[in-house]
Amino acid sequence: MIKMGVIGCGYWGPNLIRNFAAQQGAQLAYISDLDEKRLNHVGLLYPAAKKTRNYREILEDPEVQAVVVATPMSTHFPLGREVLEAGKHLFLEKPMATTSEDCRALNEIAKKRGLQIMVGHTFVYTPAVRKIKTLMEAGELGEIYYVNISRVNLGLFQKDANVVWDLAPHDVAMLNHLFGADPVAVSAIGHCYVQKELGIEDVAFVTLEYPGKRLVHIHVSWLDPNKVRLCTFVGSRKMLVYDDVSPSEKIRVYDKGVDVQPHYENFGEFQLLYRSGDVFIPRLDTVEPLKAETAHFLDVIKGAATPLSSGEHGLRVVQVLEGACRSMAENGRQVALKYDA
Amino acid sequence: MIKMGVIGCGYWGPNLIRNFAAQQGAQLAYISDLDEKRLNHVGLLYPAAKKTRNYREILEDPEVQAVVVATPMSTHFPLGREVLEAGKHLFLEKPMATTSEDCRALNEIAKKRGLQIMVGHTFVYTPAVRKIKTLMEAGELGEIYYVNISRVNLGLFQKDANVVWDLAPHDVAMLNHLFGADPVAVSAIGHCYVQKELGIEDVAFVTLEYPGKRLVHIHVSWLDPNKVRLCTFVGSRKMLVYDDVSPSEKIRVYDKGVDVQPHYENFGEFQLLYRSGDVFIPRLDTVEPLKAETAHFLDVIKGAATPLSSGEHGLRVVQVLEGACRSMAENGRQVALKYDA
Amino acid sequence: MIKMGVIGCGYWGPNLIRNFAAQQGAQLAYISDLDEKRLNHVGLLYPAAKKTRNYREILEDPEVQAVVVATPMSTHFPLGREVLEAGKHLFLEKPMATTSEDCRALNEIAKKRGLQIMVGHTFVYTPAVRKIKTLMEAGELGEIYYVNISRVNLGLFQKDANVVWDLAPHDVAMLNHLFGADPVAVSAIGHCYVQKELGIEDVAFVTLEYPGKRLVHIHVSWLDPNKVRLCTFVGSRKMLVYDDVSPSEKIRVYDKGVDVQPHYENFGEFQLLYRSGDVFIPRLDTVEPLKAETAHFLDVIKGAATPLSSGEHGLRVVQVLEGACRSMAENGRQVALKYDA
Amino acid sequence: MIKMGVIGCGYWGPNLIRNFAAQQGAQLAYISDLDEKRLNHVGLLYPAAKKTRNYREILEDPEVQAVVVATPMSTHFPLGREVLEAGKHLFLEKPMATTSEDCRALNEIAKKRGLQIMVGHTFVYTPAVRKIKTLMEAGELGEIYYVNISRVNLGLFQKDANVVWDLAPHDVAMLNHLFGADPVAVSAIGHCYVQKELGIEDVAFVTLEYPGKRLVHIHVSWLDPNKVRLCTFVGSRKMLVYDDVSPSEKIRVYDKGVDVQPHYENFGEFQLLYRSGDVFIPRLDTVEPLKAETAHFLDVIKGAATPLSSGEHGLRVVQVLEGACRSMAENGRQVALKYDA
Repeated sequence: MIKMGVIGCGYWGPNLIRNFAAQQGAQLAYISDLDEKRLNHVGLLYPAAKKTRNYREILEDPEVQAVVVATPMSTHFPLGREVLEAGKHLFLEKPMATTSEDCRALNEIAKKRGLQIMVGHTFVYTPAVRKIKTLMEAGELGEIYYVNISRVNLGLFQKDANVVWDLAPHDVAMLNHLFGADPVAVSAIGHCYVQKELGIEDVAFVTLEYPGKRLVHIHVSWLDPNKVRLCTFVGSRKMLVYDDVSPSEKIRVYDKGVDVQPHYENFGEFQLLYRSGDVFIPRLDTVEPLKAETAHFLDVIKGAATPLSSGEHGLRVVQVLEGACRSMAENGRQVALKYDA
Repeated sequence: MIKMGVIGCGYWGPNLIRNFAAQQGAQLAYISDLDEKRLNHVGLLYPAAKKTRNYREILEDPEVQAVVVATPMSTHFPLGREVLEAGKHLFLEKPMATTSEDCRALNEIAKKRGLQIMVGHTFVYTPAVRKIKTLMEAGELGEIYYVNISRVNLGLFQKDANVVWDLAPHDVAMLNHLFGADPVAVSAIGHCYVQKELGIEDVAFVTLEYPGKRLVHIHVSWLDPNKVRLCTFVGSRKMLVYDDVSPSEKIRVYDKGVDVQPHYENFGEFQLLYRSGDVFIPRLDTVEPLKAETAHFLDVIKGAATPLSSGEHGLRVVQVLEGACRSMAENGRQVALKYDA
Repeated sequence: MIKMGVIGCGYWGPNLIRNFAAQQGAQLAYISDLDEKRLNHVGLLYPAAKKTRNYREILEDPEVQAVVVATPMSTHFPLGREVLEAGKHLFLEKPMATTSEDCRALNEIAKKRGLQIMVGHTFVYTPAVRKIKTLMEAGELGEIYYVNISRVNLGLFQKDANVVWDLAPHDVAMLNHLFGADPVAVSAIGHCYVQKELGIEDVAFVTLEYPGKRLVHIHVSWLDPNKVRLCTFVGSRKMLVYDDVSPSEKIRVYDKGVDVQPHYENFGEFQLLYRSGDVFIPRLDTVEPLKAETAHFLDVIKGAATPLSSGEHGLRVVQVLEGACRSMAENGRQVALKYDA
Repeated sequence: MIKMGVIGCGYWGPNLIRNFAAQQGAQLAYISDLDEKRLNHVGLLYPAAKKTRNYREILEDPEVQAVVVATPMSTHFPLGREVLEAGKHLFLEKPMATTSEDCRALNEIAKKRGLQIMVGHTFVYTPAVRKIKTLMEAGELGEIYYVNISRVNLGLFQKDANVVWDLAPHDVAMLNHLFGADPVAVSAIGHCYVQKELGIEDVAFVTLEYPGKRLVHIHVSWLDPNKVRLCTFVGSRKMLVYDDVSPSEKIRVYDKGVDVQPHYENFGEFQLLYRSGDVFIPRLDTVEPLKAETAHFLDVIKGAATPLSSGEHGLRVVQVLEGACRSMAENGRQVALKYDA
């Protein structure tokens, strides 16, 4: 039984609380929030957990082994550091921190102290992404030409982060995981429509280049009437569409594509064959991603698993976001990405 | 009764032939194609039209008043010039020509000779676009922040034009018409996945800036398993989604959006209000756009109408496409657009 | 603070437990289930509630004011009676009981003892049904001609009830509520495909006649690959489609229909006008129906509300189900329905 | 080259005219309609066909081999008889005639004179129905339990036929073809909402029983805001949904269903296993059904094919419709169906 505390009962925290509370191997010992009303509201559902407005109370309890931080992005680093320095394993919501420097600092402390960091990149744990990874590894899609992603909806407008920091971490974490690689370059163009005075981008177009010239285009926006979460993988053998908004048919594999005929003597003979084929919708497990993610964290603490979304993984996501913002500031210039060895 | 001929019985020509043949005010006197088999196949359906492999036969008939050119893009200019020089009114498929210079030359000849040019920008004539124009002019959407467009499908791969020249003319023509204005700048990024050796882009992302800082993002692609024709208009009052693939609900007006509160004293008090509202799907006329378009051309010839998609309009579309390609060649640099007075 | 207990931690019970636990005005004091494993599993989430395998423990606690019964249908009557006889208010899952006689008996005990009964006809509390009621009362739909309902999905197969008892209570409760009236006749045809040996119908077609010749057709099935929850209201002015499976567009109002021209001299002149019009999708509140339903029960106990789904309402639903089964047994003969004054 | 004439240029006739005109093996020599305006309108598109208001002109031309009758239902028999008696092959729109007696009379004349009759049951020729037949014959669905069909839309209201005669022929023809068998019994319930005075049913529910206890439920209606053409085939192995309104995904095969466990000792141990599985959307040919149907008719005339929708097949469809109407008149009583040997 791993004794835990959760800091942050706002928008996302309660989902983590609910899932950790339901895990057999965990004991939800503390929940914490600065806002007393919010704390009491959530506390009502988990009367066995101690409520505290002072998160240090959690850090000072020697029996607590792990702490979950689900607070605004800007507090991830200072809170995360305190958690690690108190000798607790750390579950940090995404993005890991607001700078890669801060991420590196957290990883170093964890390494020194032999503690685990896991970042809440939930998409890595969804049945859909797991299925896509299986299909890709089995060569079903062939060589990936490019991936096109739309992740748009109306609001929620953030005041401390632009739309890239808010929405793109999902995509970058997912793609790094699927490709088993990190992008070598990024470019981005962003626009401020609603929060012009603040200079906070609410619409952005990000292009990632992964090794092997695989390109990814991501459209993120807070300004669209419909919630769209659509990823199209265009491969040399098949195409795959992942529609995360669809309740029952998240993944569709299209057995169609384009074949370049290998031999032709001149342009006149040049032929592109256009295959139209069947569509296949694989059944997915119906497990809640957060259930898999929270169980994975417990396994990681027990030494039974290596984190899929480790601090190292979280750092590289942040490096990509930093690169995207640098590119936006320079009107879309491509930025090369380098990672620590 | 306006006596006419159509040059080109390939992919699109038969649609124009069918519509002109059904117009009361027109007499389809000639159809022409270099390919005898194709000519005979189409001729079967229009036995009253004279079939000829030599289009000059049409031009030499003094009774023919108007000629339709629906041939590959690269022949638009030479054929169009011959038509005008033979003293016939000209209906040219889109894009008007492969260079703005050629478009200008055509417009000059037409002007000198008092002839009409109309370019086949069909979208301008769809009930959906007419409805959007009505709604915009009535102020329903408020000030337009930006427009996001996806126009993607699988193939048809062209060998003499990239995806921007193939698909984007629809969007540029539609937006110039809707805004009653031309873009002042364009940038574009393109990629060659399938036809790498030929350097023909099959995926591109184009950004247009219209006067008043209104931005448009267009994603065109020949590499997507699904046919998508989706335009999202984000306005200060309402949002509108135009889904041209939907058989019965092409336009949806969302009474939702984001309100910036006018007065706030500091960032802490800053508030964005997020309105969620009703959706309205207006009934559209079910007329075939080509029926409206071909009727309009007859009206133009008779002097009863000014062409919505004139040679001037067609030229400006081509200027934008040229700018987009220049930007693609320079890795996405923004290109300013200037038009003749 | 109303002290409560919940009997039944199976399929539906946990939803009621979760909602009562989150209500400010309620104290979830007990949860009970015969299955210890199930009880412990649910109990984990509500450590403040006392767990007991013996539901009588709840009835014997003099401080408990209300008891929720969410157990298999056949136990509704005996458990409900005990609850009432112990002097507690009763929340009974639907259907109220397996016979109208049992429902009447429960209502009588409640009346004698001055206790409230509320039946868990959730649909009555959904934002969609509330909206439909508002639209109907405002005359938006005109006179209702008929309602067509599909409520089908794959399984869950019941062993102690056929598909009519399992699925149709939702529809009957909803319609009685919307019409503010009870059907005067019912007919039904049922089929046993999978559980032939048991004679348990898994597909049925039920026809209800409401006063004023308003007809309702209901198709219920456990044998359909897709979950469908579709109600079409055909009115003299407008049509309304209620798709409960749609996440964001549950209600669509179609401004189209059929007009009979009032004056015509003979059949040859007879004209039906066919209106095709706009579609309107009203925004709905996003409240969870069970939240509204459980709050309503607390209001009912406090005397602040009259139950929308009272014991009387629950009885009439059961009478309709009984009539439908009688009709099925007689191969679809229409059965007249009579209610207590 | 088979010389032909078409009688009827109304709603459906022009589709047949267009397809026969485009068939290489046919010569569209005549088109005929009583309404001169209509005749001229259609004639404009087919100037090579002789226009006549007197259909007997066609019958008197000794070179004409085949005649197409696409006129109102009540004229099918008299016109069809004249065509056959003039010694021409007959293509008759569906339903074949208004009584089975008339159908039989037509079949007898044809037999005596060695002429072919083909009935325009288009659905038999659709790529979707062909695919379903292939899948059924390959045993993909297992044993069919039942089929559920919705065929509803708004209007067109007929004055000389009820909704069963208007819409159900499609379903009966399709099912007779798919099952390779004719129903042994039919029952139906119908309602007159809009044309009450005329007693013309606009909504009906029809149940067919095919040999082997396979049941089919058909809901036909002229009173629904949406056009629905949905057939669900529930088999012991798989389920199949045929959505004829879907532009690109008409057939979906669900690898899910219900398994009855073979051995159990008592009801308590009784188990139904519920399989949830993948979905498969086969690619369909994109040929227009009428193109296949008209080509088939030419093959039939040439003796190269036996008609899939013969006069015999058309008769049996009419017998089912007659049975359904008899059942409606007797309030849904089941009517046994017997066919000529």
